[in-house]
Amino acid sequence: MIPAPYLLYLGRSADPLAIKTSRGVAAFRPEDCLGEFRHDECPLTLGLPRLGMREAAAAGARTLILGIAGAGGRLGDDLIEDAAAALEAGMNVASGLHQRLRDQPRLAALAEARSLSLFDVRDPPADLKVGTGYPRSGRRLLTVGTDCSVGKMYATITLARGLRDRGAAADFRATGQTGILIAGGGVAVDAVVADFISGAIEQLAPARYDHGWDVIEGQGSLFHPSFAGVSLGLLHGAQAEALVICDEPGRPHMRGIPGRPLPDLAECLERNLEAARLTSPEVGAAGICLNTSAMDPAAARRLCDATEDRLGLPCTDPIAFGVEPIIDKLLCLEPSSLSTSVFR
Amino acid sequence: MIPAPYLLYLGRSADPLAIKTSRGVAAFRPEDCLGEFRHDECPLTLGLPRLGMREAAAAGARTLILGIAGAGGRLGDDLIEDAAAALEAGMNVASGLHQRLRDQPRLAALAEARSLSLFDVRDPPADLKVGTGYPRSGRRLLTVGTDCSVGKMYATITLARGLRDRGAAADFRATGQTGILIAGGGVAVDAVVADFISGAIEQLAPARYDHGWDVIEGQGSLFHPSFAGVSLGLLHGAQAEALVICDEPGRPHMRGIPGRPLPDLAECLERNLEAARLTSPEVGAAGICLNTSAMDPAAARRLCDATEDRLGLPCTDPIAFGVEPIIDKLLCLEPSSLSTSVFR
Repeated sequence: MIPAPYLLYLGRSADPLAIKTSRGVAAFRPEDCLGEFRHDECPLTLGLPRLGMREAAAAGARTLILGIAGAGGRLGDDLIEDAAAALEAGMNVASGLHQRLRDQPRLAALAEARSLSLFDVRDPPADLKVGTGYPRSGRRLLTVGTDCSVGKMYATITLARGLRDRGAAADFRATGQTGILIAGGGVAVDAVVADFISGAIEQLAPARYDHGWDVIEGQGSLFHPSFAGVSLGLLHGAQAEALVICDEPGRPHMRGIPGRPLPDLAECLERNLEAARLTSPEVGAAGICLNTSAMDPAAARRLCDATEDRLGLPCTDPIAFGVEPIIDKLLCLEPSSLSTSVFR
Repeated sequence: MIPAPYLLYLGRSADPLAIKTSRGVAAFRPEDCLGEFRHDECPLTLGLPRLGMREAAAAGARTLILGIAGAGGRLGDDLIEDAAAALEAGMNVASGLHQRLRDQPRLAALAEARSLSLFDVRDPPADLKVGTGYPRSGRRLLTVGTDCSVGKMYATITLARGLRDRGAAADFRATGQTGILIAGGGVAVDAVVADFISGAIEQLAPARYDHGWDVIEGQGSLFHPSFAGVSLGLLHGAQAEALVICDEPGRPHMRGIPGRPLPDLAECLERNLEAARLTSPEVGAAGICLNTSAMDPAAARRLCDATEDRLGLPCTDPIAFGVEPIIDKLLCLEPSSLSTSVFR
């Protein structure tokens, strides 16, 4: 576990998308966020107190979260400089970048000298096994998407909280860097060696016997030509009894692939269900989450209602309208025979 | 390229499956195989002259191929000992094991001192990019399977040779360790970081403009709960105009998963075509390859004929009966609009 409270790093970033990891941590773990660190040229803010490294450490911050994404996940000189300053001030450092903190000799030496820790959250667990698809007990929900970055993580966390608010045992299972920093654990499935994708998810959400839910964050899309392999392995490893499909209406093309349209929502859901049946024969759809943050609220409400009618499933924007209709449906579901199986 | 001729390693193995890489190299590159190395307790042979390390080097062998698979792809002390002896005798060493030769300090030091090379063929290329699915010129065929280890590599190599025998330009594109050692190049797609599966295959079989074929080795199966993510990424990256499906009749369960039956051949083919259409909308099936090595030849012939009638596609055992019926079909195919496209 990464020791809280946190100082969230914005650095010199002027691109709101580049700070999405820091923003996610601020949104979902506000109680653990003491402040933000930004240089003078950074025009962005998360609305937290702006603190220097020593100032933050003196106020009790235990870890600097390097929650930004540079080009190609690189760890540039300015980030190394600031991470070193955090260590010198007495804080641990956590990062979800592709380049690892521990591979920087200066940071490794500083951390060792001060008995502080470097957390590279994209590191896969060392003891991964290949998946088996054998039935395992426990109730599992997986979010899937028409595309990357359509709001799967926000939907997943909100669904896990919604279940808990209604008295169910439920845990968010993170599969990407931001989710891992929010949850304090998880597997960055995009960084796992290809043979171990489904096995990593079986390990992330093992059998459980408390009638509670593992609410698993999806990645990518079966319809994304770059990442569908990750999405399929995740789908098989999750062995979910319920899928929730996520979409961002109005997106002009698949992320990063100009010219490629998004799949139809109903077809995308059907293909996900079909593929999921390999390891979860009774899987069903529990709802639809739309990211309508770019829409007028009234239009967003109308779109949710129309989508609900068209697909026959509860449809909501989890941030704008909450997830109650989906939680209602989940709580009414008869547990699948799989979810209460003890056969291994 | 790994310098030939080769000395093929059998070591102390008594398990025919454990030497499948050495056997594959002997089967498909006999002209490059000078001999086999085995200890006295090894009861297996590939029918090649048995040579010691110095003897092989003196006869002109330039590389020892460590073509065996121990438990978990491990590089045990006995293999290290023998690899060191090969280096001392003046040969390079090549291995497809998960554990890397270069991570063994003794081997690394010996190779450097003698200006010899260590080839870890499972290493992914350093410069992988994520896939895009953009149309690229060239004709591509991919083998897919009902399961792992049903004969996809043998079928793929035989198809590439069959095309060349009929005057077509055709290249075998290897995606596993044995295929890479046979081809002298390729990408071990099971060892690639998950985000790069389809991108690695786009790089392995880039656009070509000579009207020739890239004949791409498939891996795993869309129906294998351990490895389907690899198979799907490979399918999307291959952007094939023709699929050939491979099966081993009579297999009791999916490899490594007791209790899980193999998919129906026709359904498996249909699902592969459906998934392949994401990046190759005009993809079609070109034939069926059955591995009937465990069957009586007359029964094998009858099964091929019956399967051909049932699925309406040429069906053969590539090793027992050759691949002429599939080559006939491929040579009659109108190139898809994609295969002659120059749009990027």
